[in-house]
Amino acid sequence: MLIYDRVLESPQDFSFVIETLGPCTVQSPLVNCEFIDDADRVLLTADARRIAQYCAAGIQPPSFELAGAHRKLFFNPAWTKVAITTAGGLSPGLNDVIKGLVNTLFFEYGVRSIYGIRFGYRGLLPEYGHTPMMLTPDIVDTIHEDGGTILGSSRGHGERVGDLVDSLQRQNINIFFCIGGDGTLRAAADIAAEVKRRELKIAVVGVPKTIDNDLNFVGRTFGFETAVYQTHEIITSAHMEAKGAFNGIGLIKLMGRDSGFIAAFASLANSVVNFCLVPEVDFEIDGKGGLIAAVERRFSSGKDHCVIVVAEGAGQGFMKGLPERRDASGNLLKHDIGEYLRDRLHAHFSRSPWDGSVKYFDPSYSIRSVPAQGTDAILCHLLAKNAVHAAMAGRTSCVVGRTNNTYTIAPITLATVERQKLNLKGDLWRAVLDATRQNDYFRVPGNGGSTVSVPKE
Amino acid sequence: MLIYDRVLESPQDFSFVIETLGPCTVQSPLVNCEFIDDADRVLLTADARRIAQYCAAGIQPPSFELAGAHRKLFFNPAWTKVAITTAGGLSPGLNDVIKGLVNTLFFEYGVRSIYGIRFGYRGLLPEYGHTPMMLTPDIVDTIHEDGGTILGSSRGHGERVGDLVDSLQRQNINIFFCIGGDGTLRAAADIAAEVKRRELKIAVVGVPKTIDNDLNFVGRTFGFETAVYQTHEIITSAHMEAKGAFNGIGLIKLMGRDSGFIAAFASLANSVVNFCLVPEVDFEIDGKGGLIAAVERRFSSGKDHCVIVVAEGAGQGFMKGLPERRDASGNLLKHDIGEYLRDRLHAHFSRSPWDGSVKYFDPSYSIRSVPAQGTDAILCHLLAKNAVHAAMAGRTSCVVGRTNNTYTIAPITLATVERQKLNLKGDLWRAVLDATRQNDYFRVPGNGGSTVSVPKE
Amino acid sequence: MLIYDRVLESPQDFSFVIETLGPCTVQSPLVNCEFIDDADRVLLTADARRIAQYCAAGIQPPSFELAGAHRKLFFNPAWTKVAITTAGGLSPGLNDVIKGLVNTLFFEYGVRSIYGIRFGYRGLLPEYGHTPMMLTPDIVDTIHEDGGTILGSSRGHGERVGDLVDSLQRQNINIFFCIGGDGTLRAAADIAAEVKRRELKIAVVGVPKTIDNDLNFVGRTFGFETAVYQTHEIITSAHMEAKGAFNGIGLIKLMGRDSGFIAAFASLANSVVNFCLVPEVDFEIDGKGGLIAAVERRFSSGKDHCVIVVAEGAGQGFMKGLPERRDASGNLLKHDIGEYLRDRLHAHFSRSPWDGSVKYFDPSYSIRSVPAQGTDAILCHLLAKNAVHAAMAGRTSCVVGRTNNTYTIAPITLATVERQKLNLKGDLWRAVLDATRQNDYFRVPGNGGSTVSVPKE
Amino acid sequence: MLIYDRVLESPQDFSFVIETLGPCTVQSPLVNCEFIDDADRVLLTADARRIAQYCAAGIQPPSFELAGAHRKLFFNPAWTKVAITTAGGLSPGLNDVIKGLVNTLFFEYGVRSIYGIRFGYRGLLPEYGHTPMMLTPDIVDTIHEDGGTILGSSRGHGERVGDLVDSLQRQNINIFFCIGGDGTLRAAADIAAEVKRRELKIAVVGVPKTIDNDLNFVGRTFGFETAVYQTHEIITSAHMEAKGAFNGIGLIKLMGRDSGFIAAFASLANSVVNFCLVPEVDFEIDGKGGLIAAVERRFSSGKDHCVIVVAEGAGQGFMKGLPERRDASGNLLKHDIGEYLRDRLHAHFSRSPWDGSVKYFDPSYSIRSVPAQGTDAILCHLLAKNAVHAAMAGRTSCVVGRTNNTYTIAPITLATVERQKLNLKGDLWRAVLDATRQNDYFRVPGNGGSTVSVPKE
Repeated sequence: MLIYDRVLESPQDFSFVIETLGPCTVQSPLVNCEFIDDADRVLLTADARRIAQYCAAGIQPPSFELAGAHRKLFFNPAWTKVAITTAGGLSPGLNDVIKGLVNTLFFEYGVRSIYGIRFGYRGLLPEYGHTPMMLTPDIVDTIHEDGGTILGSSRGHGERVGDLVDSLQRQNINIFFCIGGDGTLRAAADIAAEVKRRELKIAVVGVPKTIDNDLNFVGRTFGFETAVYQTHEIITSAHMEAKGAFNGIGLIKLMGRDSGFIAAFASLANSVVNFCLVPEVDFEIDGKGGLIAAVERRFSSGKDHCVIVVAEGAGQGFMKGLPERRDASGNLLKHDIGEYLRDRLHAHFSRSPWDGSVKYFDPSYSIRSVPAQGTDAILCHLLAKNAVHAAMAGRTSCVVGRTNNTYTIAPITLATVERQKLNLKGDLWRAVLDATRQNDYFRVPGNGGSTVSVPKE
Repeated sequence: MLIYDRVLESPQDFSFVIETLGPCTVQSPLVNCEFIDDADRVLLTADARRIAQYCAAGIQPPSFELAGAHRKLFFNPAWTKVAITTAGGLSPGLNDVIKGLVNTLFFEYGVRSIYGIRFGYRGLLPEYGHTPMMLTPDIVDTIHEDGGTILGSSRGHGERVGDLVDSLQRQNINIFFCIGGDGTLRAAADIAAEVKRRELKIAVVGVPKTIDNDLNFVGRTFGFETAVYQTHEIITSAHMEAKGAFNGIGLIKLMGRDSGFIAAFASLANSVVNFCLVPEVDFEIDGKGGLIAAVERRFSSGKDHCVIVVAEGAGQGFMKGLPERRDASGNLLKHDIGEYLRDRLHAHFSRSPWDGSVKYFDPSYSIRSVPAQGTDAILCHLLAKNAVHAAMAGRTSCVVGRTNNTYTIAPITLATVERQKLNLKGDLWRAVLDATRQNDYFRVPGNGGSTVSVPKE
Repeated sequence: MLIYDRVLESPQDFSFVIETLGPCTVQSPLVNCEFIDDADRVLLTADARRIAQYCAAGIQPPSFELAGAHRKLFFNPAWTKVAITTAGGLSPGLNDVIKGLVNTLFFEYGVRSIYGIRFGYRGLLPEYGHTPMMLTPDIVDTIHEDGGTILGSSRGHGERVGDLVDSLQRQNINIFFCIGGDGTLRAAADIAAEVKRRELKIAVVGVPKTIDNDLNFVGRTFGFETAVYQTHEIITSAHMEAKGAFNGIGLIKLMGRDSGFIAAFASLANSVVNFCLVPEVDFEIDGKGGLIAAVERRFSSGKDHCVIVVAEGAGQGFMKGLPERRDASGNLLKHDIGEYLRDRLHAHFSRSPWDGSVKYFDPSYSIRSVPAQGTDAILCHLLAKNAVHAAMAGRTSCVVGRTNNTYTIAPITLATVERQKLNLKGDLWRAVLDATRQNDYFRVPGNGGSTVSVPKE
Repeated sequence: MLIYDRVLESPQDFSFVIETLGPCTVQSPLVNCEFIDDADRVLLTADARRIAQYCAAGIQPPSFELAGAHRKLFFNPAWTKVAITTAGGLSPGLNDVIKGLVNTLFFEYGVRSIYGIRFGYRGLLPEYGHTPMMLTPDIVDTIHEDGGTILGSSRGHGERVGDLVDSLQRQNINIFFCIGGDGTLRAAADIAAEVKRRELKIAVVGVPKTIDNDLNFVGRTFGFETAVYQTHEIITSAHMEAKGAFNGIGLIKLMGRDSGFIAAFASLANSVVNFCLVPEVDFEIDGKGGLIAAVERRFSSGKDHCVIVVAEGAGQGFMKGLPERRDASGNLLKHDIGEYLRDRLHAHFSRSPWDGSVKYFDPSYSIRSVPAQGTDAILCHLLAKNAVHAAMAGRTSCVVGRTNNTYTIAPITLATVERQKLNLKGDLWRAVLDATRQNDYFRVPGNGGSTVSVPKE
């Protein structure tokens, strides 16, 4: 991460100061509580050498504002009106975040006007006629037991910034919580900017959502832990289908548009996987170093089945130049690496001498629509709590996250600026290579399970 | 079922006598066991009026041979050599049946030569070079914990009757257990016939497999119970995806080529389903009485989501005359009611004014590849035990089944002769209509939930 | 079952005629429905030889009334007032039965006055002040997703027959559905008798509940299938705990006061069990043929762990003459075979030379409080539907059940008259002996896995 | 945490230098790998103000050695002999750690002599005669699918340091991995000290195990995430049992001897819990502010059920002075807060006017014996990998852990020195209070859900 070097040259670019709506003057109603100091900050890195460098250079190491309860608030809870929305695809934990926001606002701060905006930003646009839901602790009490989001979700409409702010203004919203991914947060940043331009006093606070867990500055995102767990059943099914046929291939497409975290975690946690294909690693299909040859080697070595996990963002190059496909109604179909590999593997292996068969699994909906589990649910609650603390203290244009195991507040623009990638030289990926032993078949020398060749059952 | 009337006219057609290899002369090694009498039979119907008719007419009511341990055997266990194969698609419980066969042969009868034929009938054909697996109680001890089949499976090759019998003969097999569906059992009948023609002493006994549970004469088939249970998770996901979007439609295709048992059971057991489409009921897509209009009525009534279950054999008429589709490699793709409905619903509902979205689920592999559960596993064990009892007593060209809660032996040809259908006037289907309330939307008068119209959430 | 012989001598004792409140004169509102004929009956046995005997003797074979929709009703649905109660311990499926009753009454018959009586019979007694719940399809729509019963349950109060009938009379109840076990159904029979004495027109219909599945005349009871499935997780845990310690013993107590069905099914479906102890089989703890010696033999043979399942009704003789035990508050504690075995095994095996450890599991609550699954839920729905059909046609003092795979109506007194037991010479118990191989350790000659001795891992 | 202040006064006390066996001179066989620098360290705190203080004072902030692959090793992999043991109670993930150690040693480093010591330290003592298991990737390939530990475990024997080191020495072990809790790690420290005294070259590296997740210096411990998730089912059961009876109380005892992390996480993730009792909070049973009065208030307010979670270490004061209890064999029974509360609540609430009933759940074994799930399994793998990296580089008397999201190496003595406690003024505990609303019933003013009183269903 080059940021740490760049800090030495222009520290002012990395001050990460959170915008506020104004000075905090209202006494917090919280009692028996540990308040944070407004100046509390958390270092982005705990690397001792880096920190020593900054210290020697006499400059502040980059840090984020600590999240937590403030002694003084910007908003008077009794008069505060809050709107919450969820946008984009489903992710485990959306309902936990909603519940955490409502419970904290209601029980800790005594806020009574909490509205759920239906179906993302769309719910703010009057022409669609969606009525907001009043949210109370009783209404949200058991919503965490269901996947999905009780508010519903949708994509888009974020470009209608003026209309959205009109709507917030018309309804006297003081705090607007946006739970969503890239697009949602970018729109939220635009909304916050427009709010500022109009000199309104509306705090816009985001809770970043990406099941892929590849945001750079916000730590583990909610839903990822559950998603990884949820892959167990489908990978087991694929394994059984693969083993149930001669030269059977079980092919599973998992989430991960830009990064292979879910694919890698799933392959390591369910070590029946024989090949894990991720966006970070280029691979061939044809030729001596290609996937087909690798599977052939596996079959030829006496293993008569094969389980392949592919992240949706892997092998995008193969999709270029493919002929158009249309569905029964004439709609253009998007090309998809999962279906592409399925067709290629089927074309090659279903014939003599392989006589194999390919079983394809695309479980995305079943993975993302389940409720968050255990510690993942706790993460949702604590992100929500800190989002409320920040908003009540007038923080705006920001997101909650976790930095070095501490909840922090970061500028909203940082949340989507850059994607984290698998470190191909790091322990996680090497453990995946050990678990799959795929490089033995790809004939990649000295990589992961390289010092010895023991083909995996 | 007209059979019961036809019996009165020509009772001899319904004698259901099981072929045997010859007289039983070997003493059974079983001790502390309740033996059956060779003449024990189980009535096909327990309908008191029918039976009174037969009694009055002085004719034997139709019945099957009772299954169970025989006091005298045809085969001497010490010299008996057994082959077991699994063919066709996966179904929960295959490994339990294998385990039940092996344990009964080994522990009860003391048979020591038990071979697992790999990948269905293919494994008997020498040109494929598959080595059979020796099966012992230790090898099968934990196989029931996995789905699939340890023997592997494949389709086809059943037409090579001569080669298959050559192979059984060459390997001195005395008993051949075939676990499989229609095609498998038809081939097994052919094998038994060829065995008879050659005057060999090989018992061929089938264990019928169809996850659809629609065989007419063999009672509940193994795997069905687990399959129904397994639909829970995917239907819940579809519900969450449907509710998570404005006018969201969750569409799930379930197994059931000729009958809608899984679809009906799943819709009743998971009553978030709003429409259940089965092969037994014709339906329209377009027009006032069609599915699209029904979904429109649902959306217009203020319900902004919809869950649809469709059996794979429903609506086959729509597939006729559709243009060809090919995959990326130019292979012809089969049309499929699930994908067809997905495309039609998407084309209609993704546009204004509906702004809806369709999420499609095709969970067949994940349903059929899981291990059998609880009582379903018990069914497998007891079917297997009775298949062994029958074979050791020289019964051949037969299958095990359950008739009126008793294990029975039926001629193999009966197992596949006719499919059971949902009784559309019976309680099960009416309960589905109550649970879905779909006829309110289809505007079918007086059917199921007909006396009142309370649209379902 | 001697009943079948006794029929030949005194057929009139086995007519099993259901009491009715009077002639059916109201037209059924059901359309598109298959009605039954009032004279339809289902034979209790489908044993062909028995039936031939009856036929030869010119007497009616014993049969139950067929359950199903009647063309004519006793009650006018528009004026019918229904009460439902659940009593006794929890069982999976209670909520499904309630839902099935409400949906059938409401959608099929158009009944609108349906009351849930809280906490069993207690809810009918005015001094406890429990308000009944109005039940509608919307209220019961998702209750099947939870275990337990939305009505609550309690034991006892059934002896206050007069007060209970007073209460039904005061509230103008026409139909009273009792979902419960022995005690509940006995009280229901008393209520029906008192209703008759007072010449009231209240139909009393029971749905038998016993998770042990050992009622003699009503076929498989709801909840059993789920209970068997639910044992999987706890037996797996016990296995892991047993293997995780040197000479580790995992001891699990399962339901089954009079019969070992759950224990036997669970041991067969989860074949890591090494000893299955049921009420039907006497066993010793001490001495050469006792459990301790058997476990010692297992440990001595090199197996360093052991999993034992004991039904709660097994080994009751050991509990006689034990000293009293009291809890911290001085309350007398009931002796329990699970705890007794735990203490005995601990006392023996925790010392040198065994150095073992005993981990005890009593999962009853976690097994009985889960929701019914898949096909078990369907059973609940169809039992409920048939209970409604019977009640609307004025049948009373009866229960619904399944006879030879058909839903039937039996006199309520039969439901609890006699318990089914494991047939120790039958295939189920023999399969358990094969799966556990316990007789090798008990040194029981020639029983189950007797022809060979292969100690189980 | 006062340590951060104490550092300013005596920084040398907090240098946390890891002992090594000697200089690293062997070239690492790892290729395509990111090596760490021996001087890399990770700060214990990322608190910006603290770090600024240290910087201003010119002293090194406290830090741990970074874990990771070293370019130079102490041991030559080809000649390295490794022993692995698991000791103490089960925890999810033990098998994943074993698998991670074996795979990393074998595939990354090419180590071929890997021994599993059976049943903890006991397995090293010759008089018990346990044979070690040879461990290879094939042997450990699927062990992660089972809970428990394939090596078996036991408590104790750690005091026989001399004998244990004799045994390691006799078998020429170079690296000894100890996976265990407090006692195990203390013994490992003693072993390392004795190894040093004898001037042997044996690296002793620990992987800390405590399902309670309350170690101060090692970050989240493996197994905790799974344990929290695993509480879901049992708490749901308790809820159903509580609701299924009038004034029903479901009481669940969870792990947590010194801290309430599992109890708190479980109560927050499963918000049907009404009271969460942890070691960090003193509570009364009797009197106006006691638990009994609180439950009475709940029942009196119209809520007729109640779910209570108690950590095993809560309310230990009540156990003092209780009369002795003995089991059937006369063995003394330990008092236990779960059983104590059960008896107290039963004595009070089973009587008129409450007529309630208490259902008690002690699920510890079923929680700790399951396999680690998803991300928890990944944690195990990466802890194991870093333990191997450290050991191969000659680090000894140390444990692996996570500090500020980075894997680190800490002195073994630190791992057990101090227990983390729930911060009663922090967001986690406050979220528990919001979720349970228990302080409304305890009448604790202004604590958690204090600003308003909405009793929880």
